[in-house]
Amino acid sequence: MTVTDPTATATTTGNPPPDVIRSGYAELIVTDLAASRWFYVDLLGLIVTAEDDDAIYLRAFEEYLHHSLVLRRGDMPALGRLAYRVRGQDQVDAAERYFRGIGVDTRRVPAGATRGIGEAVRITDPLGFPVEFFYDAEHTERFTQRYDLHHGNAITRLDHFNVMVPDVKAAHRYYTGLGFGVSETIIDDEDNVYAAWLYRKQTVHDVALTGGDGPRLHHIAFATAERHQILHTCDVLGALHKEHHIERGPGRHGVSNAFYLYLRDPDGHRIEIYTTDYYTGDPDNPTVEWSVDDDRRRSFWGHAVVPSWYTDGSRVHDLDGRVVPLSAPAVREAERTGVIVGADGFAIATEGDQKIPFKLGEQV
Amino acid sequence: MTVTDPTATATTTGNPPPDVIRSGYAELIVTDLAASRWFYVDLLGLIVTAEDDDAIYLRAFEEYLHHSLVLRRGDMPALGRLAYRVRGQDQVDAAERYFRGIGVDTRRVPAGATRGIGEAVRITDPLGFPVEFFYDAEHTERFTQRYDLHHGNAITRLDHFNVMVPDVKAAHRYYTGLGFGVSETIIDDEDNVYAAWLYRKQTVHDVALTGGDGPRLHHIAFATAERHQILHTCDVLGALHKEHHIERGPGRHGVSNAFYLYLRDPDGHRIEIYTTDYYTGDPDNPTVEWSVDDDRRRSFWGHAVVPSWYTDGSRVHDLDGRVVPLSAPAVREAERTGVIVGADGFAIATEGDQKIPFKLGEQV
Amino acid sequence: MTVTDPTATATTTGNPPPDVIRSGYAELIVTDLAASRWFYVDLLGLIVTAEDDDAIYLRAFEEYLHHSLVLRRGDMPALGRLAYRVRGQDQVDAAERYFRGIGVDTRRVPAGATRGIGEAVRITDPLGFPVEFFYDAEHTERFTQRYDLHHGNAITRLDHFNVMVPDVKAAHRYYTGLGFGVSETIIDDEDNVYAAWLYRKQTVHDVALTGGDGPRLHHIAFATAERHQILHTCDVLGALHKEHHIERGPGRHGVSNAFYLYLRDPDGHRIEIYTTDYYTGDPDNPTVEWSVDDDRRRSFWGHAVVPSWYTDGSRVHDLDGRVVPLSAPAVREAERTGVIVGADGFAIATEGDQKIPFKLGEQV
Amino acid sequence: MTVTDPTATATTTGNPPPDVIRSGYAELIVTDLAASRWFYVDLLGLIVTAEDDDAIYLRAFEEYLHHSLVLRRGDMPALGRLAYRVRGQDQVDAAERYFRGIGVDTRRVPAGATRGIGEAVRITDPLGFPVEFFYDAEHTERFTQRYDLHHGNAITRLDHFNVMVPDVKAAHRYYTGLGFGVSETIIDDEDNVYAAWLYRKQTVHDVALTGGDGPRLHHIAFATAERHQILHTCDVLGALHKEHHIERGPGRHGVSNAFYLYLRDPDGHRIEIYTTDYYTGDPDNPTVEWSVDDDRRRSFWGHAVVPSWYTDGSRVHDLDGRVVPLSAPAVREAERTGVIVGADGFAIATEGDQKIPFKLGEQV
Repeated sequence: MTVTDPTATATTTGNPPPDVIRSGYAELIVTDLAASRWFYVDLLGLIVTAEDDDAIYLRAFEEYLHHSLVLRRGDMPALGRLAYRVRGQDQVDAAERYFRGIGVDTRRVPAGATRGIGEAVRITDPLGFPVEFFYDAEHTERFTQRYDLHHGNAITRLDHFNVMVPDVKAAHRYYTGLGFGVSETIIDDEDNVYAAWLYRKQTVHDVALTGGDGPRLHHIAFATAERHQILHTCDVLGALHKEHHIERGPGRHGVSNAFYLYLRDPDGHRIEIYTTDYYTGDPDNPTVEWSVDDDRRRSFWGHAVVPSWYTDGSRVHDLDGRVVPLSAPAVREAERTGVIVGADGFAIATEGDQKIPFKLGEQV
Repeated sequence: MTVTDPTATATTTGNPPPDVIRSGYAELIVTDLAASRWFYVDLLGLIVTAEDDDAIYLRAFEEYLHHSLVLRRGDMPALGRLAYRVRGQDQVDAAERYFRGIGVDTRRVPAGATRGIGEAVRITDPLGFPVEFFYDAEHTERFTQRYDLHHGNAITRLDHFNVMVPDVKAAHRYYTGLGFGVSETIIDDEDNVYAAWLYRKQTVHDVALTGGDGPRLHHIAFATAERHQILHTCDVLGALHKEHHIERGPGRHGVSNAFYLYLRDPDGHRIEIYTTDYYTGDPDNPTVEWSVDDDRRRSFWGHAVVPSWYTDGSRVHDLDGRVVPLSAPAVREAERTGVIVGADGFAIATEGDQKIPFKLGEQV
Repeated sequence: MTVTDPTATATTTGNPPPDVIRSGYAELIVTDLAASRWFYVDLLGLIVTAEDDDAIYLRAFEEYLHHSLVLRRGDMPALGRLAYRVRGQDQVDAAERYFRGIGVDTRRVPAGATRGIGEAVRITDPLGFPVEFFYDAEHTERFTQRYDLHHGNAITRLDHFNVMVPDVKAAHRYYTGLGFGVSETIIDDEDNVYAAWLYRKQTVHDVALTGGDGPRLHHIAFATAERHQILHTCDVLGALHKEHHIERGPGRHGVSNAFYLYLRDPDGHRIEIYTTDYYTGDPDNPTVEWSVDDDRRRSFWGHAVVPSWYTDGSRVHDLDGRVVPLSAPAVREAERTGVIVGADGFAIATEGDQKIPFKLGEQV
Repeated sequence: MTVTDPTATATTTGNPPPDVIRSGYAELIVTDLAASRWFYVDLLGLIVTAEDDDAIYLRAFEEYLHHSLVLRRGDMPALGRLAYRVRGQDQVDAAERYFRGIGVDTRRVPAGATRGIGEAVRITDPLGFPVEFFYDAEHTERFTQRYDLHHGNAITRLDHFNVMVPDVKAAHRYYTGLGFGVSETIIDDEDNVYAAWLYRKQTVHDVALTGGDGPRLHHIAFATAERHQILHTCDVLGALHKEHHIERGPGRHGVSNAFYLYLRDPDGHRIEIYTTDYYTGDPDNPTVEWSVDDDRRRSFWGHAVVPSWYTDGSRVHDLDGRVVPLSAPAVREAERTGVIVGADGFAIATEGDQKIPFKLGEQV
């Protein structure tokens, strides 16, 4: 997959990027709707706005649009679509113009192509992901104060998408070209970018970019109000003897300062539950640059990370529902010196054929 | 004080309002800097960016501008200034043009007129409040992750101002004219507006308007990450036998859904500590309308409110440091029918000379 | 009601008091089982061990005995019985001997007289309360780790009873005679005791004694693990617009240091939800003596208290199900000097016919 | 080290065991008092009751005895002493009689042998540990409500000791002989006991026994009121870039249901911070038996455990300050079948020379 540099092109064509508000919803292809319903509804407590034989449409307690997550039945687990909300229906048109201007095929879909969503524009973005830009959406009841329906682990809203890309720097250019701000990065002394966090709404991110074979979805993150709600999800999983759904955490990220938990759904899709990052709404919001050598970037508490968190991700569909092939990162200088650099810039020293874990060593 | 209708005027003059980002800082006139320092630094844990014989400049843990609160020594307690941050230095000019266009005197002050703040424009706004619009400001270290310095009740950032005005409807027009969105209101069946919450940043409010003799400052609110931090402030005050600084709360507001605590500082200025409201950043964010008859609007838990919370407020200075005279609300229909309507629309039934508290009755 | 001094008598008769372990269960007479079921099961989340047309048997998440609360249908709300668990079946016999020895009628009831409870001894105690001493009880599953069933406000166990008595000092003698330790008291300079907290298990109390017309039940208290669980109960009540069930709190008691919430059930019985008191298990555990003049004793945060919390209580049944008549406290010196002393020693100054609330004044 | 069976002997000699109340204090030998002071006072917030050139005497916020932890300067890190409090000074005598009766050397030390502690009896217990039995101790101010001094991670009290012994079953007999109750165990189908939790006070334990080379101290545990306080300790360590002091957690134990964090102090002594276990005070409190095959016993959330948590422990001194030699566990059946059973019964499968971690695999 060749990554176009959309910034340069956009400047040339003169079409401004659409005014994206925020990450809006994701569609996951799942193989067993009943199993997924247990995970997302019974366990995580997301609210069912609508469901039929093929799909379940879910929202969180502070959301008033039709859904922020669609679970669609399919043969193989995959990401079906990431959707960004733009500031108005005219910005759907602006998206169409912008992407055509930079040489990206666009596909206009009518209202209802996704239940609850108005007329929208879809692309396979230059990074290989199926992405939709929409504004119109059905409103539904906001359950902010329906505490009678909150579980002990109530989720408030979708927070962000995290995607795996072979070339973080190019992906960074693509998203800043789309008008995203950069809240945090992981870099080294030689100007390599290992990961980046970018936002439109006034939080740390709407999308995070991490290095690896791509395009793949690393995770979708939902926010909760306080940390005890995240801890409760862990306790419920232990009680049900389904603690294997916990992949990583709970812990504190250095990057973003958020308190996190990573779960794997029944199809292996990774879901983050996330709380308390910080306000980024001022135009001079400083970008936090983490050194790839500061181990606190990934765990502020120095926790070891299970390798699957680095290696696994969900494959993605193109607009016709075919799995998009993967590209590997280019060979890096680092590898020649015995260091493999992965997802958020983690390092493994190698001695001959033997990998030596960077920190803490093996776990039992 | 006659309130101009700035919306109409702005349309006439054709000057768009400045692009306000958010509530930026407040300056409080205090009579005893040492006593105030105890309250804001020792008790609440705000960080001292700078201080001299006349003033203390404070910020919260997630703020990187020079300050969000100035305590300035004076003879009488008062609000010295509310300051909104605009999107760039050109928007300071836009503010000047806009207010001149609607017939409001403006005063340009040089960089450093307030320590740490660049060239700015000040007005006495149509509601009688001393207000500054600024962009340039010194950056300082953001202490988001300086947990070693966090107290048990760490405050993250300034959240909003709450002002008392005799005519909420006119104030509402003024602020929507300035481009503020309306998140919540308290109304009745006859189109009266008792209180309104308005925002620029993506939270429930940057400014709240409540009815009463004005112009007065009702309170300044700071945010914290979780509720236990608010509870800890109460415990510390009890431990020091200074619990009389607690005026109201902790509790849950119906309006905004936030968890709150109201304190009175040594001069009687009211400070709210506040957590977990909700995201308002989408253009179609629904306005929540509370009936003045739903007692949960002020306390979602049905708590009685101490009368001082309704009656007391800080007087405000004009741009020359003189106390601005008060205006009372116009006589309302309600009062003729034996109901006095106050700050956030609370009601007291009267029988002859005898006030009958609306709910819960006297407290001991 | 004449209160015998049981300490002296016990010494005379030579029968040691039974070895009480802790407050064990209470039986409340309720007028509408369905309404009570909503309150205790749906709202508070207590677990139903058994139920039939006449009664519901409830336990909390960390309890393995059959029940800690019985709701029994009756014509009028009342306390049916307080039950203390003793260290073994032989201590049921010891209770019988002890009470006979001090001139108290005892009634032996067979296993199953209360469903799930073994052979026991019942008395109307010298303070006028129906009290049972039991050991044998059916075991059931302890749900400590059934987090899948925990609500956001999971209750862990029964904590204590609080009774209203006309003569606190005499009641204090009675319970210390029974071997209870005294953790905290409210006193004045003249050796008056306004309230006392007494324990057998290693917490602040199994029973609290507060002054007022008696015998009445002030409240039954259940423990929860953390404060956010108490806050969640408030939020759920607000969501259901049943916030009138909240009588007082949440807040921090000076006495016991516990974080509290007082609710009124559909019959007006008062239930406290309570967390984080302290360990009292050492024999030299110091008794904390609060001055009746320290307003923090009742609210460490200086909160006003709604008068009903002082004035209301549940009437109690005798062993034959008849309502026990009330006695008023003796006239106190205090009242002659214009101070009325109530439940936990609160004071109201009087001027002629006019009561002047001690603190904070009226609430609206 | 041959372990006597003290139960049988005690029966023979007819001396009842002393009435132990609870784990009382520990003395740790540390090599750098200043470094230890940073860890225990500055980081964990323990209160200094007294200090001199040789030792620091510390207590937690709800403790009123002189200390619960002594840090004593020495050449090599070690456990200096575990101390249990007994119910009265006569029980110190009872301890002397009991241990002499079962053939254990006792040493009576005068008041002040440990600063703040009265006349006491010391032994090297049959498991090889230096243990003191004391009652008299100086009282000091209980800081329960000194919230002004609480850090964000206030510790309330010492909770328990955890010791490593080669023969858990024998150690279990020794402690039940001393009158300890058993709250939880880890066992297998063949009646092997891998670990046991025993108590005198009404919590899950005063002492825990885990298998391994011994006698060694696995950890000392302190309690805190709520989980957020434990999380704050992690955040402070991250902020100071001293996150390497975190060895394991935070997490939820299956055994005891407690929320835990394990730290290593500057000398490598392991400290647990611990909250919310459950009441065990009734005589029929059920013993929870965990299968060694249920991975949730050690982490209810299925977390991997860093090997050091299993392999490392503090050596112990005898009564003359000499390091006690280690004994290894007897060869177990398990090892012959390729499974090594360690501390709390964890299992590692082996293939030839290659260890295969039981779960989750290597961490990075």
